[in-house]
Amino acid sequence: MRKNLLALAALSLSVSYSSVAVAQHSGAMTLEEGADKVLTADTLAWDFVEGITTEVGPRQAGTEAEQRGRDWAVKWLRQNGFENVADEPFMMETWVPGALASAEITSPFPQPFEVTPLGGSASTGTDGIEAEVVYFKTIAELSAAPEGSLKGKIAYISHSMTPTQDGSQYGFAGPARWVGASIAQSKGAVASVIKSIGTDKHRNPHTGGTRVVDDMIPAGALSIPDALNLERMFARAGDRPITMKLVLTPQNRGMTQSGNVVGEIVGRDPSLPPVLLACHIDSWWNGTGAFDDGAGCGIISAAALHVSHTGQPLRTIRVLMAGAEEVGLFGSIAYSKAHIDEPIAVAFESDFGADRIWRFESNFRDTNPDLHAELAASVARFGVANSTIVASGGADINIARDQKTAIIDLQQDGTRYFDLHHTPDDTLDKIDIVQLRQNVAVWTQIAGILANYEGSIQGEVAQ
Amino acid sequence: MRKNLLALAALSLSVSYSSVAVAQHSGAMTLEEGADKVLTADTLAWDFVEGITTEVGPRQAGTEAEQRGRDWAVKWLRQNGFENVADEPFMMETWVPGALASAEITSPFPQPFEVTPLGGSASTGTDGIEAEVVYFKTIAELSAAPEGSLKGKIAYISHSMTPTQDGSQYGFAGPARWVGASIAQSKGAVASVIKSIGTDKHRNPHTGGTRVVDDMIPAGALSIPDALNLERMFARAGDRPITMKLVLTPQNRGMTQSGNVVGEIVGRDPSLPPVLLACHIDSWWNGTGAFDDGAGCGIISAAALHVSHTGQPLRTIRVLMAGAEEVGLFGSIAYSKAHIDEPIAVAFESDFGADRIWRFESNFRDTNPDLHAELAASVARFGVANSTIVASGGADINIARDQKTAIIDLQQDGTRYFDLHHTPDDTLDKIDIVQLRQNVAVWTQIAGILANYEGSIQGEVAQ
Repeated sequence: MRKNLLALAALSLSVSYSSVAVAQHSGAMTLEEGADKVLTADTLAWDFVEGITTEVGPRQAGTEAEQRGRDWAVKWLRQNGFENVADEPFMMETWVPGALASAEITSPFPQPFEVTPLGGSASTGTDGIEAEVVYFKTIAELSAAPEGSLKGKIAYISHSMTPTQDGSQYGFAGPARWVGASIAQSKGAVASVIKSIGTDKHRNPHTGGTRVVDDMIPAGALSIPDALNLERMFARAGDRPITMKLVLTPQNRGMTQSGNVVGEIVGRDPSLPPVLLACHIDSWWNGTGAFDDGAGCGIISAAALHVSHTGQPLRTIRVLMAGAEEVGLFGSIAYSKAHIDEPIAVAFESDFGADRIWRFESNFRDTNPDLHAELAASVARFGVANSTIVASGGADINIARDQKTAIIDLQQDGTRYFDLHHTPDDTLDKIDIVQLRQNVAVWTQIAGILANYEGSIQGEVAQ
Repeated sequence: MRKNLLALAALSLSVSYSSVAVAQHSGAMTLEEGADKVLTADTLAWDFVEGITTEVGPRQAGTEAEQRGRDWAVKWLRQNGFENVADEPFMMETWVPGALASAEITSPFPQPFEVTPLGGSASTGTDGIEAEVVYFKTIAELSAAPEGSLKGKIAYISHSMTPTQDGSQYGFAGPARWVGASIAQSKGAVASVIKSIGTDKHRNPHTGGTRVVDDMIPAGALSIPDALNLERMFARAGDRPITMKLVLTPQNRGMTQSGNVVGEIVGRDPSLPPVLLACHIDSWWNGTGAFDDGAGCGIISAAALHVSHTGQPLRTIRVLMAGAEEVGLFGSIAYSKAHIDEPIAVAFESDFGADRIWRFESNFRDTNPDLHAELAASVARFGVANSTIVASGGADINIARDQKTAIIDLQQDGTRYFDLHHTPDDTLDKIDIVQLRQNVAVWTQIAGILANYEGSIQGEVAQ
C-alpha cells in the first residue's frame, strides 16, 4: 500500500481516482468477481468510445484531428485515475486525402460512382484523369499483364472476399489494395481503382494504405455496389471501351507531429517488467474510428481500471494508444524505438472491432504451459476457447516482437468487421454493448492474472 | 387471332416478339401454369432492373439522365414485344441538387457530418451558412416553438422511426421531412436539417421532397449515424452552443421536359377499357433507382409479357412508367390530364421495392365480391393474404382515382424498404431475385385474371 498512500498524498483528487478506488476496493472483490461484474456493468469502455467518437470524431494520423484525439485520451486517462499519462511525440510523413473524390463512367453508360482515395495515393489534380478502364478479376491477372500494356489506361482490380470469423479473407483479398496500384503503375497505368476490400453492400468505399512507389499513380477504391455495377457494364458493353473520369486530390504534407498516448496503473513492484495493453488512437478520416479502434482503446483502458478495482496489481499495467497506426504503424515503430531497453513482460492488443472474443492464443504455450492453461481456463466461462495457434500480436506491439517477449492474442469475432473497416460507417451505433462488455470482462480477467504473476510470463526460452 | 396475324405482318421481327410468343404459347399454358413457372424462371424483371441500373443509373426527374432512362425503357419495351410504345412528354419545374453538400460541426466538437439536400431545398451558396443548432425531438416540438424563436438559427429536427412491414411508420416519421423545413422557416430559421427518414445505420442520408414555401430555406437530411452523434453532442455540450456550417447548393432549372413511358399488350377487344399497370421511371440522383422503382417497372412489364405468353388477353394491358414521381407526381398528374376521357378498367402500381407481396387489397370487395374473392384465392398459393382494407392505389395512378375506377394494392414487405429509400444504397445488389420473382408471379396471376374478365371489374357502383 506504500505506493497508494504516496499517490494519495502527491496527486490531485481527480488524478488519484484509481488509487482511491484501489484503496476502497482492495480485497473487496476477487479478480473473478470483478471480471464477472464487468460483463453486465462496465460503463468505462463505452464512455471512452462514445466520448471520443462524439467529441472528436475522425482522427487522421499526423493531423490536428489526431492531436485532438490524443489530447482527449490524455484527459480521459487522467480523469479516470491513470498515472504517468503522457503523449510521447514522434515525427512522421503525413498524407491527407484532400477535398475531392469522384469517379464517373463517361462512356458507354454514363453514371457517377462512389470512390475514395487509398492512403498514399497521388493526386489526379482537380481536373482529373479520363481514360479507358481495363478490368482484372484478380491481382494475379494484373500481375500477368504484359509490360507496358496499361499505358494510358486506368486499371480496375476486382477480387473475391467473404466474411470470415477470423478475418482471414483479409489476407486473401487484401493484396488488391496493398499492391494493386503499384503493380498497375509498373505496367504503365495512369491510375487504378479497386473493388473495396470489404464484405458489405453499401455505397461507402473502404480506404486503407497502399504501397507507395516512385512515380506513384492516383489510387482509389470504388464502393462494392459500384464495383459490381462496373463489372456488369463490362458484361454489357461488348466491344465498346468503358471510360472513367477519376478525380482524387490527396496531398503529402511533409513531416508533422504525431504521438503515442500512454498511461499506467502503477504496480506494487514497479521494478518488474510491465504488462502492456495496446490499441491505436488514430483513425482514417472518413469514419469516426469507433470499431477501429476507439473500442479497442476503451476495452484496454477499462480492463486496466477494473483490475485495479480488485486490488493494486503486482506489476504495472501500461496502456499504449499508438498514434498513426493506419498509415504505416509509425506509432508502434516509434514506441519500440523509444522503449526498446525497457523490458515488457507481456503485450496484447485490441484492434479488431468490438464483437465478442472467441479464442485465446499465446506464444508461450510451450515455454510456460501452466500459465497458458490457467489463462485459457480463466476465460472459458466467457465463451473463449483455448487454441494451439501461436500468437503473433497486433500492429501496435512491435516492441514485444522486437524484444521477443510474451504475446497474447484475444481473437474477436470478425464476421462483420469488414463490413465497416475503413469506411464512413465506422460509427458508434455499430457497437453492441453486450459484446463490448464481454471483451472488457475477458481483458480484465487475463490482464489481472498477468499483472499479478510473479515469475517469467514467457517461461524459460532457449535462444 | 386476327390481331396477332395483323401484328405479325405489320411489325418488324424485334417488335413482334410478344405477338410471336402469343402465337406460339397460346393455349400451351394456363394462366396458373404461367404464373407458377414465373416463380422460379422469370428473367424479364431482373433484365429490366439490371439493365436500367447498369446502363443508365440515377434518373433525376426533368434531367438528361431521366431522358436517357425513358429512352432506355422505350427501347426495352419495344425489344420485348410491347406495342404502342411511346414517351408522352410533359413540362415541369425542375430542381437539381447541385454539386456541393457538406455539414460540419464547428464547435464545441468539430467534425464532419454526411448531409444531403432535400428536394426543393434552397441553396446556402457555396460559402455556406454557419449558425447555432437548435434541437427538436419531434415535429410537434418544432411546431410549438415561439414565433421568431429560431431567428438566425439552424433547426435540427429528429423523430423516431422503426421498420414496419406495411411501411406505416413512414407516415409517423415522414412529417419531419415533409413540413419540417417550412415550419422552421416560419419561426425564423436560416436553415434546417433533419435526421434522415429511414431505418438504417449507414452514412448515407435519405433525401426526399420537402414542402416548398416562399423564402424557402436550405433544407438537408443528416445520415442517421450523424444525427445520433449530434444528439449525443447535445447531451455532452452542457451550456455550450453547438454550431454547424452547412453547404447545400441546389438549383432550380425552370421548366424542362419529362415524360411518361407507355406500352401495351393489345387485347383481343381493344374497345374494352384496359388494365393499367404502373410504376415510375425516375429516381433521385443519389442512387440508381433499383428498389425505387426500377424493380417495379421490371415487375409490371414482366407480368404483362407473361400474361401474353399464356394467350392474347381479352383486354389491353397497358404499362405506365411515370416520369417525375419523386419530385411531385408530375407524371401521374400529366397522365391523368391527358387520358382522363379514356376509361381505365382497373389500375395498380408496384412502387415499394422488390420484397415479397404478402397482402391483397381492392376497392371493389363490396361492389364485386366474387371477383375480389377469385383474385384473392388465386394468389393464396404465393403466400398472399386477403384483406378487408380498401385499396387506395399508389402515386402513379392518379387517373384511377380521378376516374373513380377499380384499384388494387398488392402490398409488398416493407421491412427493409426504409433502409434504402432515397439513399445512395438503392442499388441492384439489394434485390433478392427469389422475392422479385414472387412479385412477378403474383402480378402475372392478378393481371391475367383482370385482363380476361368480361364484366365490369368494379361491379355496380352506386353514385
